[in-house]
Amino acid sequence: MSDADVLALLRADLGERVDTTDASLEAARADKSGHASTGRPLAVVHAQSVDDVQATLRIASRTGTPVVTRGAGTGLAGGANAGPGEIALSLRRMDRILEVRPDDLIAVVEPGILNAELGRALAEHGLWWAPDPASRDISTVGGNIATGAGGLLCTKYGVVRDAVLGVDLVLADGRLLRLGHRTVKGVTGLDLTSLVIGSEGILGVVVGATLKLRRLIPGQVCTVAATFTDAGSAATACSAVTAAGLQPAIMELLDAASLAAIHALLSLAPPTPGAAQVTIQTDGPTAETDAAAIAAVLRAAGGTVAVSTDPAEGDRLLTIRRSLHPAMARLGTTLIEDVSVPRSELGSMFTRIAEIERRYGLVIPTVAHAGDGNLHPNFIFSGTEVPDIVWQAADELFHAALDLGGTLTGEHGIGVLKRRWLAEELGEDQWDLQRQIARVFDPQGILNPGKVFTP
Amino acid sequence: MSDADVLALLRADLGERVDTTDASLEAARADKSGHASTGRPLAVVHAQSVDDVQATLRIASRTGTPVVTRGAGTGLAGGANAGPGEIALSLRRMDRILEVRPDDLIAVVEPGILNAELGRALAEHGLWWAPDPASRDISTVGGNIATGAGGLLCTKYGVVRDAVLGVDLVLADGRLLRLGHRTVKGVTGLDLTSLVIGSEGILGVVVGATLKLRRLIPGQVCTVAATFTDAGSAATACSAVTAAGLQPAIMELLDAASLAAIHALLSLAPPTPGAAQVTIQTDGPTAETDAAAIAAVLRAAGGTVAVSTDPAEGDRLLTIRRSLHPAMARLGTTLIEDVSVPRSELGSMFTRIAEIERRYGLVIPTVAHAGDGNLHPNFIFSGTEVPDIVWQAADELFHAALDLGGTLTGEHGIGVLKRRWLAEELGEDQWDLQRQIARVFDPQGILNPGKVFTP
Repeated sequence: MSDADVLALLRADLGERVDTTDASLEAARADKSGHASTGRPLAVVHAQSVDDVQATLRIASRTGTPVVTRGAGTGLAGGANAGPGEIALSLRRMDRILEVRPDDLIAVVEPGILNAELGRALAEHGLWWAPDPASRDISTVGGNIATGAGGLLCTKYGVVRDAVLGVDLVLADGRLLRLGHRTVKGVTGLDLTSLVIGSEGILGVVVGATLKLRRLIPGQVCTVAATFTDAGSAATACSAVTAAGLQPAIMELLDAASLAAIHALLSLAPPTPGAAQVTIQTDGPTAETDAAAIAAVLRAAGGTVAVSTDPAEGDRLLTIRRSLHPAMARLGTTLIEDVSVPRSELGSMFTRIAEIERRYGLVIPTVAHAGDGNLHPNFIFSGTEVPDIVWQAADELFHAALDLGGTLTGEHGIGVLKRRWLAEELGEDQWDLQRQIARVFDPQGILNPGKVFTP
Repeated sequence: MSDADVLALLRADLGERVDTTDASLEAARADKSGHASTGRPLAVVHAQSVDDVQATLRIASRTGTPVVTRGAGTGLAGGANAGPGEIALSLRRMDRILEVRPDDLIAVVEPGILNAELGRALAEHGLWWAPDPASRDISTVGGNIATGAGGLLCTKYGVVRDAVLGVDLVLADGRLLRLGHRTVKGVTGLDLTSLVIGSEGILGVVVGATLKLRRLIPGQVCTVAATFTDAGSAATACSAVTAAGLQPAIMELLDAASLAAIHALLSLAPPTPGAAQVTIQTDGPTAETDAAAIAAVLRAAGGTVAVSTDPAEGDRLLTIRRSLHPAMARLGTTLIEDVSVPRSELGSMFTRIAEIERRYGLVIPTVAHAGDGNLHPNFIFSGTEVPDIVWQAADELFHAALDLGGTLTGEHGIGVLKRRWLAEELGEDQWDLQRQIARVFDPQGILNPGKVFTP
């Protein structure tokens, strides 16, 4: 069936929610990974209800048309990039909070709500949803679920998978399934909720979620700022914090190159050349004693350390951290990587990155969620095509992470950018098994084809 | 192929690990649910290595012989009961701790190790694995993973799914897959680790696990003991504790009938007739202030409350709670149920149970992990067959839980005892999808057939 025929069917059912303006089609080609599909999708459908999603999927399955589900388009692996012959299904307008239950510590939300917007609404009830990607101001809860997002607070408060009790899922053929529970415990049948989290749009379309909430942590946070002569020693110091049994809420590491780029973006004085910065926050009733103990570990590891209970100072340092992505974008096209290693191997991973930099003559600005061993090395280049030398260096980076007991992606997902390495990490048998499972949900293979798995 | 032929193949490969003694075959028919299969399995294989498991599965798949994987046989849903024509594959002898990494907060273990035994080994490193089923002294980590076990500490410290980073899985055809990560973050491909947790032996055989550990909580616990005139008001008081934003480590509710049975078992003075008991523990740096705040909520809700910082008093009260199962066993055959409801509905669920008791003229001793809304109502009868009236009352119980937004099973699993209700909770579409997923792992359907799904 031709694109025009599919479009006519969509328009008949969904009317003005079907958008074929140039700007919308062009925007749907890309996420924030710096990469775009080869051309425009046939339409963007702005779903406003579960019914809209079901109608779209029924047309898609009947006509064999691929569907790429999108939230705010802030993904970093190309997972939501829609291309020729595909329907871009946007859930951004499904952004209602359907229920907040302080007594049960749950909220029921639509997928299009922004993470930070949800956070503000929950704060009025003294509640929060812990997942906290650096993109929280611009990324949706549905996108967080689709990628299994992490963030800055995971080291202490967990990732998305730890904070979702159930999801409503529209299958490729338009049927609606309600997966999971409203209860904090539940083992009825296979845990399809967990399977859907992080599945990047290949199993179905998440149209609702029951979230597990926490009470806001009372008291003031403490901030520990430390500088080290280089990233490797900063990383080793962070590993020492974890090994000492201390648990910060946030522990972020910025290497010299990323710090310099951010300072330039924010018009701050240039940082000390070569120096790496570690920003740590502690919270809860032992925030001050924890901060003091952490400061001692960092000093013993060679850091220059300052402790502050001033919330403004904490905000200032975290704004620096959260500005990484725009700072990189200013330097050129960015391929942001997302390897994760056991926490004890953080120093070794920085050593490997330095070796790769030397071998390829590249600068690879790197930040790390150091509390959980998750690193974001950034490759910068000009133009829209990833140069061969960058792919080669990235290949070495992935192998280094796997070699240290780590993984390709801690929180961004596979998308299109890492699919070529997926089988290597999973092994052929598991790769094949995963593909077969996806086919159970989507026998025609119309959901986000070419993402996660190589075609 | 005849049982004798299968046995000959097993003996050729596995020698003395193949056990056909009367006592072993008889023991493999049952778990601790009080229910047994219709007859003896053809053999018990005591696997001592991953190779043994693979060899057994290769023979099973070649000959189309069903395999029932067992740990310590302490399950409560009949999930590990092996019957005629089946191989009972015991992992109990695979009980080594392969690795403990205090710096990475992980341990790698074999599945046959007892939960409490692991706990003792980890304590030497100042570590613990949080999942804490009431059966921890007698249940294996592999069994905990297969059922997605909960326990007493889940309300604050999570369930098994929150505490496993990866599993090694032998498929039905004998291939070994390594699922998951050694890192705390990881979203490479579909999350098959979470899918396997709680899958009750139908997807594969878990032969190893990478566990996510915590540091032992420093300081002394505080114990709050409260009595209420009846279980309903005790339940409402527990809901009030959660709604007040307080987070105990443990919050257990025993109704009058269960309390009386336990006191009889332990030769304690009989408790006040009709009265229900709530046992709460707080821990960490705010243990004492939390306990005081909780005591105030309970008093306002009509409880008679005592707070103690004496660890012996806490142990005494928790020993009472952990004695429920043997106390029930003394009364007759037990059908222990495991419904879970949103925490605000705990009082309503007790009201429903009281109505069911009246309508059927039954006494249903009930305990609850009140911090997470998980109840264990016990049906007691004589003989080995569940009487019709008990099934009818159980049916009403499940419907009441579903009606309140709850689930059939919070932590015990479906096994054989709850499979008839599974489709009702999941819906036919999801039930069918789950079966298809299981078939991807096990195309012949030889892994624990008849469990979870009705045949």
